[in-house]
Amino acid sequence: MSTHPFDEAVALQPQADGSFQGRTSPAYANMIGPYGGITAAQCLQSVLAHPQRLGDPVSLTINFAAALADGPFIARPRPARTNRSTQHWIVEMLQGDEVVITATVFTAVRRETWSGHEARMPQVPRPHDTPRTPRHGVEWLNRYDMRFLEGSIPQEWKGAENASSLTRLWVRDDPARPLDFASLTALADVFFPRVWLRRAKLTAIGTVSMTVYFHADAAHLAAASSGYLLVQAQGQGFGGGYFDHAGQLWDEAGRLLATTHQVVYYKE
Amino acid sequence: MSTHPFDEAVALQPQADGSFQGRTSPAYANMIGPYGGITAAQCLQSVLAHPQRLGDPVSLTINFAAALADGPFIARPRPARTNRSTQHWIVEMLQGDEVVITATVFTAVRRETWSGHEARMPQVPRPHDTPRTPRHGVEWLNRYDMRFLEGSIPQEWKGAENASSLTRLWVRDDPARPLDFASLTALADVFFPRVWLRRAKLTAIGTVSMTVYFHADAAHLAAASSGYLLVQAQGQGFGGGYFDHAGQLWDEAGRLLATTHQVVYYKE
Repeated sequence: MSTHPFDEAVALQPQADGSFQGRTSPAYANMIGPYGGITAAQCLQSVLAHPQRLGDPVSLTINFAAALADGPFIARPRPARTNRSTQHWIVEMLQGDEVVITATVFTAVRRETWSGHEARMPQVPRPHDTPRTPRHGVEWLNRYDMRFLEGSIPQEWKGAENASSLTRLWVRDDPARPLDFASLTALADVFFPRVWLRRAKLTAIGTVSMTVYFHADAAHLAAASSGYLLVQAQGQGFGGGYFDHAGQLWDEAGRLLATTHQVVYYKE
Repeated sequence: MSTHPFDEAVALQPQADGSFQGRTSPAYANMIGPYGGITAAQCLQSVLAHPQRLGDPVSLTINFAAALADGPFIARPRPARTNRSTQHWIVEMLQGDEVVITATVFTAVRRETWSGHEARMPQVPRPHDTPRTPRHGVEWLNRYDMRFLEGSIPQEWKGAENASSLTRLWVRDDPARPLDFASLTALADVFFPRVWLRRAKLTAIGTVSMTVYFHADAAHLAAASSGYLLVQAQGQGFGGGYFDHAGQLWDEAGRLLATTHQVVYYKE
């Protein structure tokens, strides 16, 4: 049995000094450098693989300080503070002597409490009743089965302004793969840039910071298995070269798995 | 003329090693330790005061690793990566040898581009037509003039479950003070815990991570001056001891100044 491309991409080699070596993955190549979602997954993986790690991820913020060059990188996770059942991590990823990624991760041993998710999955057709959306271009798009319901990438770049940048789609790894914290993190970055949808105009972009809040524990992720996720994102502020979006990810059963935000540079 | 309590609270003394010393402020005391918003403002201020700082804040993520003890702290901002017009900072705040705060800040020299904020201010009564909401208890509440429109703190803790945790209010510093990046950051944490509103039940809570995306530049902040901000926040996921909320902050003229989200521990 061959290894799933996602598992190959997030494989990290522990180094003698406690850091990890990884490599950018040609299977997840973007226009320039790798897909940001796979970098975020590799970053989280360096914490998950750390021998001192306590509990499961609750939040992750990753900052894209520079475009990664194709090739090896070093991830340096450091537990800045360990409490009884929670832990705060600082992660830096480097290529040569240059920092390319900074991140903070919060992990915790979660306990049963009152629960009641307020962000409900919208009523939409089921994934198997939704045709797969053909997407061409950069390599990482081939790693996901996407089925757009609303807010598809513009077919024509007419420069006509859209009032809403809401996008909704069903998505899963292709080939299908049981969900885990790393692959959920990668899926949180699956949205094409909101400014392209608003303006129907291609402009150079780059995510500068992405946050993921995890609302699922390992048992919930196991229950989601290799099913589709319904994911959506919508822009909030656009100006002065930066926009942000807010998004949500649910499993097929309608359970909220994660919420996510990011702020993105755009050129014009 | 006496100094505004906010300016006293965010005053930092540069140290020989490039770090800054500050003190928790009794004027912004919370139940245990200081109001998180003032700690976030102090954290950002350490970057703003740094001689190598390039540009204005675009995003801030602060992680509350431990309750701050009343007294002095050290803030250590470090530029992890400086590009031509952008900069990525890692900040740690310490008391004794213990890390109490980790943070990342992204600053940039912003340029004029296409703009079009999508998160619009809801139609609400004007601040001067909205009565000031009396709030008692912890000291920091006295530093803000709050005028609730929706989702006030429960008057009775009946344990009746509310479907929505949306809160909207007008708010400004008291006494009034011209808005800047640090005070806007503090205002982004002004929401009482969403889980209290959902459940009408007091449970122990603590923010573990907060992010602010700045959609205003210095000129926009100057235009907002010392007017009221309309701020709102709503919870998304609640379970396993953590909930998150997403929020927006507009000036009186309806211009989006910032978006914010946070994830919060709750005990039961």
